[in-house]
Amino acid sequence: MTTEHETQPWVKLEEIIDSGNAEQLEAYLNSLAPGEAALALSRLDGVEQLKVLTTLEPQDAADLIDEIPDVQATALVDALSPERAAVILQNLDSDEQADVLGAIDAEHAEAVLAAMDPQEAAEARKLFSYAPDVAGGLMVTEYLSYPRTFTARNVIEDLRQKVDEYADYDVQYVFVVSQEEKLEGVLRLRDLVLTPSNTPVVDIMIPNPLSVKVDEPLDELGAFFDHHAFIGVPVVDEAGRLVGVVRRADVEDALGDRADSDYLKSQGIVGGEELRTMPLLLRSRRRLSWLSINIVLNVIAASVIAYFEETLAAVIALAVFLPIISDMSGCSGNQALAVSVRELALGFIRPNELLRVWLKEISVGLINGVALGILIALTAWVWKGNAYLGLVVGTALALNTMIAVSIGGLVPLVLKLVKQDPALASGPILTTVTDMCGFFFVLSFAQLMLPWLVGTS
Amino acid sequence: MTTEHETQPWVKLEEIIDSGNAEQLEAYLNSLAPGEAALALSRLDGVEQLKVLTTLEPQDAADLIDEIPDVQATALVDALSPERAAVILQNLDSDEQADVLGAIDAEHAEAVLAAMDPQEAAEARKLFSYAPDVAGGLMVTEYLSYPRTFTARNVIEDLRQKVDEYADYDVQYVFVVSQEEKLEGVLRLRDLVLTPSNTPVVDIMIPNPLSVKVDEPLDELGAFFDHHAFIGVPVVDEAGRLVGVVRRADVEDALGDRADSDYLKSQGIVGGEELRTMPLLLRSRRRLSWLSINIVLNVIAASVIAYFEETLAAVIALAVFLPIISDMSGCSGNQALAVSVRELALGFIRPNELLRVWLKEISVGLINGVALGILIALTAWVWKGNAYLGLVVGTALALNTMIAVSIGGLVPLVLKLVKQDPALASGPILTTVTDMCGFFFVLSFAQLMLPWLVGTS
Repeated sequence: MTTEHETQPWVKLEEIIDSGNAEQLEAYLNSLAPGEAALALSRLDGVEQLKVLTTLEPQDAADLIDEIPDVQATALVDALSPERAAVILQNLDSDEQADVLGAIDAEHAEAVLAAMDPQEAAEARKLFSYAPDVAGGLMVTEYLSYPRTFTARNVIEDLRQKVDEYADYDVQYVFVVSQEEKLEGVLRLRDLVLTPSNTPVVDIMIPNPLSVKVDEPLDELGAFFDHHAFIGVPVVDEAGRLVGVVRRADVEDALGDRADSDYLKSQGIVGGEELRTMPLLLRSRRRLSWLSINIVLNVIAASVIAYFEETLAAVIALAVFLPIISDMSGCSGNQALAVSVRELALGFIRPNELLRVWLKEISVGLINGVALGILIALTAWVWKGNAYLGLVVGTALALNTMIAVSIGGLVPLVLKLVKQDPALASGPILTTVTDMCGFFFVLSFAQLMLPWLVGTS
Repeated sequence: MTTEHETQPWVKLEEIIDSGNAEQLEAYLNSLAPGEAALALSRLDGVEQLKVLTTLEPQDAADLIDEIPDVQATALVDALSPERAAVILQNLDSDEQADVLGAIDAEHAEAVLAAMDPQEAAEARKLFSYAPDVAGGLMVTEYLSYPRTFTARNVIEDLRQKVDEYADYDVQYVFVVSQEEKLEGVLRLRDLVLTPSNTPVVDIMIPNPLSVKVDEPLDELGAFFDHHAFIGVPVVDEAGRLVGVVRRADVEDALGDRADSDYLKSQGIVGGEELRTMPLLLRSRRRLSWLSINIVLNVIAASVIAYFEETLAAVIALAVFLPIISDMSGCSGNQALAVSVRELALGFIRPNELLRVWLKEISVGLINGVALGILIALTAWVWKGNAYLGLVVGTALALNTMIAVSIGGLVPLVLKLVKQDPALASGPILTTVTDMCGFFFVLSFAQLMLPWLVGTS
């Protein structure tokens, strides 16, 4: 049984939940390796999961919410009573609060806000009003700012007095503001330490510090932190007033989340993340919504084959090569697609540089198409003893490779130009068009060459 | 021409390079939005790129190296003379130094090390001896540590004296070590500020701080920073001696790089990142290496069709459905694959939980397989007026959907168990197996049903 417990933390967790001992529960959750808590929690049933959150002290419950994946946190908070959810949320950083409130059921969110401390609720509402992927939605409001009239001693005394209140704050910098709350400077703790205590803060602050606007988009924030080795950047409103701080870690988390979401979408997991602990019918329905679009596209592409059925009947060997050409073109197209996605992300191409990308792709497509075409032509020739069959499938694969790299290379740029989501649409567009072209090339060439193909096959 | 310059920074950059003015060059590069510098640089030819690095002051050149993508930085440093490369590298953080030295040509790296300041070279060599994806390879050696016998005043005085020398250091914490350099505590700058200056550091330090071993792998470091809101973590050797600091930002960068590399590999960009500025033949060769493996797998899968050629000739309409079944099964399998990759990354499943994953997948596969099977069966029936054709392709798609989700769901787990790279091998395994099974189902069912199929078609 001991080894069982070691490898299956949820069994042990269930036992502790039954005992209802908050301290033991907290101690056990803390003893688990990072990630194991989320795993253990995911294996409990809904009632048990709620019991964990209601048994823990609010601060510990908030830490747990912070640690587990967003999709899991949302489901848990959705199931809590508004009062309990409010108590726990008050222990989260302001940006996390806003994220959770934005993700849970809207009506429940209102109930939770109503149950929160009015000032905290007002803060949360404000953050929550920003889009989640701009500075306003990513910032925290836990920062320290002091008037420009202060000295180093004033700042240090305030820090000393409110050391408990500021315990949650990630104090690396403090900000200096004008009477109108306009951002005037940044003060590094180390400069506070290193100067005589009666120095005015305006003399040791870094004046006119870099800042971002509340509506600065995530991509720009990512580029900002790539460019500057800062831990955080102050956020100002239209009037230049300091309203929050965006931390590097939160920007990196948000970029990571978006990359994960793009990956899932590109693989056909659409409409939200899927975990296997979710209800079967929800998982099935979400997957089907994507598959049913694809099956229609597939039928459209395959109708090209139906059109050439007589040719195919005359040279049945062609049927072997249709899926090969479809799949190989897909591979070539995906390579070009990946390079475009990557170059766009790195900023090495701009979405309007279609001609440049196409020229770069078509030259690779020409070389690789000819190489692959010769390979498949030789295969067909050796297998069927008919050089014309090789000529047909080889030429078709060569041409279709060029089509595939062109589409793969350009589709992400075009989708970006027309502001569509490349992760979602690139794959189906690529597959459908290359399949149609590939089937058309093989079968129309075969139709032209029919006398030579049937002569010896 | 003005607008031309605004949209094409490389034109302007070329002009400045020709003038050879270091200050103007630095000012122009700084004026570019983040990312634009990398773009502009990538559009210059090799000679011009080198001229940028040799014209800039070493510190500015180092900042540029730090900012541009690794693959671009490596190519540039590879082309520099060892002496110039050494001068520039000395201005990089120790972890970046080690990364660049590890990525450039090994012989060139030795020449650069030989040209560096002996002490810096020794540090770099040490870091460079660690794998790039463990704490030793990710850590920086720019940290501050003080003996346990110091007081707060001693520390502050040292900071004050060496303020210039430490300017590059990212000082948020200082460490307290024993006489044997063993890590004993962490001191927060804010505690230094807030206590009387004659307090011994041992009284205000956080004793027995969390630390990681030099050989701690990247995944564990990622989990560590998920779990703890630290900016950095001290790294100790086997004897508990402090040897460096791993910063959160560097761990997140490394995880991001790995995710990018996984994405590229899963799309068939293998053997290193591709940028369209690379030589055509290199790009073509790398892509072909992957395509030629795939074409072999494709021919193997399609040989199933060849085996049933007589059946196919009798019911030529089946040829239309073979690519549909191949593609739809690929889609279903990719969905399951994405969920497994995601759950593994989140720690929600363990690689050995094959049965659990299979049961979860097969239930979705059953529902979706039946739904898709009915859809394609109706399509076939309506189109050809033959219900038996619908039965054959519908049953085949239903069964093959179950096969596809099983393989898609399990392949990432199995590859992880046998320590293979899931990004590289998952796709080809999934495609090949599901194609073979799909073709086999359609054609063998058709063979069994042949009398009914040819009767009315």
